[in-house]
Amino acid sequence: MKAPLSILVHGGAGPHRPDDDVAAAQAGCLAAARAGHAVLKRGGSAVDAVEAAVRLLEDDPVFNAGVGAALTRDGAAELDASVMDGATLSAGAVACVTCFQNPITLARRVMEDTPHIMLVGAGAEAFGRARGLPVIANERLVTAQARRELETHRVSTGTVGAVAIDGAGHLAAATSTGGTTGKLPGRVGDSPLIGCGTYADDMKAAVSCTGLGEAIIRVSLARHAADLVASGLDGFAAARAALEALARARGAAGLILVTPAGQLAWAFSTQRMARGWVNGAGEGAGFGPDPR
Amino acid sequence: MKAPLSILVHGGAGPHRPDDDVAAAQAGCLAAARAGHAVLKRGGSAVDAVEAAVRLLEDDPVFNAGVGAALTRDGAAELDASVMDGATLSAGAVACVTCFQNPITLARRVMEDTPHIMLVGAGAEAFGRARGLPVIANERLVTAQARRELETHRVSTGTVGAVAIDGAGHLAAATSTGGTTGKLPGRVGDSPLIGCGTYADDMKAAVSCTGLGEAIIRVSLARHAADLVASGLDGFAAARAALEALARARGAAGLILVTPAGQLAWAFSTQRMARGWVNGAGEGAGFGPDPR
Repeated sequence: MKAPLSILVHGGAGPHRPDDDVAAAQAGCLAAARAGHAVLKRGGSAVDAVEAAVRLLEDDPVFNAGVGAALTRDGAAELDASVMDGATLSAGAVACVTCFQNPITLARRVMEDTPHIMLVGAGAEAFGRARGLPVIANERLVTAQARRELETHRVSTGTVGAVAIDGAGHLAAATSTGGTTGKLPGRVGDSPLIGCGTYADDMKAAVSCTGLGEAIIRVSLARHAADLVASGLDGFAAARAALEALARARGAAGLILVTPAGQLAWAFSTQRMARGWVNGAGEGAGFGPDPR
Repeated sequence: MKAPLSILVHGGAGPHRPDDDVAAAQAGCLAAARAGHAVLKRGGSAVDAVEAAVRLLEDDPVFNAGVGAALTRDGAAELDASVMDGATLSAGAVACVTCFQNPITLARRVMEDTPHIMLVGAGAEAFGRARGLPVIANERLVTAQARRELETHRVSTGTVGAVAIDGAGHLAAATSTGGTTGKLPGRVGDSPLIGCGTYADDMKAAVSCTGLGEAIIRVSLARHAADLVASGLDGFAAARAALEALARARGAAGLILVTPAGQLAWAFSTQRMARGWVNGAGEGAGFGPDPR
């Protein structure tokens, strides 16, 4: 039986604060999921869909990715992103790029136009300029809210990601972030690391993670969750079981996944994880824990 | 029963060429293994041992790491390295650094002196300068042989790595490389990526990989091998089974590992992988396949 066209996005896991704009985060996630689903309905691939969804989230200043990114100790936006195609295990990633609003598209260009998977820093930026991607000043990525969060030493939330299954049954995952507020210049978290923040394999699952990157890296969270789906667990059981590995990793996180059968599932060990989804059964969005 | 102090190093997997200096590669690996073993005998930790071993290999121009690194398309050395502590799952990594002879030590400083795991490019270099690591001109990392390999478009070999178990039964892994000859500036391969080129978990195994980085990344090779050991496979069986995943990943590779019981094991799908080891049973070195 063919799985229905399905997409699930997240807008970041973290603490739930009194001033969180819950409505805006949910609306942004649902809009991104709808945009990705429209791509699938037009016959687009899962890679096309997750890229389209993540671009919308990068453009939305509510989220910690693209415009609105968390800032380094020095007040700059340094962006990380990755994408993986579950059909071929091809992947693309960039880290520490400062002059593009949509690093997810730069990551896709690395995947499709180079023999490499990951480019970082000045080399990644030179590649993006050579491919003709629109270049913008770093200040245009910096919002007043991001500056306030740096000044008040707040934990950053709002990393974004998407997972999808297309009409051919192929899976894809994508993740994009500004990283942690006050990070050292050059710091790379889990988001652009294949197997950590992002993983996709048609035979396992497609996964995107969010939370404390260093903890996610220690347990290869995306790959671990995909392996748990492949071992036969239900999607939600796999997502929850993957988070149990974090107990040794000194941090909290969340993740979203889609299984080869088209099940959308999520879990988070933080107080909240913004999310939105569209599939054959309808659509929805959430922020805090689901009712049990 | 306590596992004996053991260390295994590799000096890179790849094609076996007529002009390979097999004796120098084996001697370099054995010297590095002996240096690491001496650290263990003095009561040093597994992390101390793998760092010491990899530093020697970085200093040896025979290998593609530190001095003698493969060069980018533009003729520069851009170095990547990572280290992981199996006792705590702590890790450190650097990528795309150009002014340090021993990036493995810079990676260890990231692990021990920052809340982060990975720093890249200019940010990593600023951190290293601030920590007082000796800075050298990029040209001092560039050998005549590396220049010839760039001019003749040769596949680079000679990534280095080490795995060890110490007197407390803790595991560690470390990997260091110049990457692939002719790579785009900013390209990052598997070596500095936790779960890809390097992984260590006292409950699973410590693993260091070498070969085509992009293929290794697609299958999270180090993490996959560690999981296979944890599933109960003998070390050599796990190493060989992990390489089977590469069939979908469009590349060949090799890996070394140490199990929690102290077994040293390796496998490679390339023609050769230089290696050297010291444990309770003695010491040895190899280059091509072992006799069956």
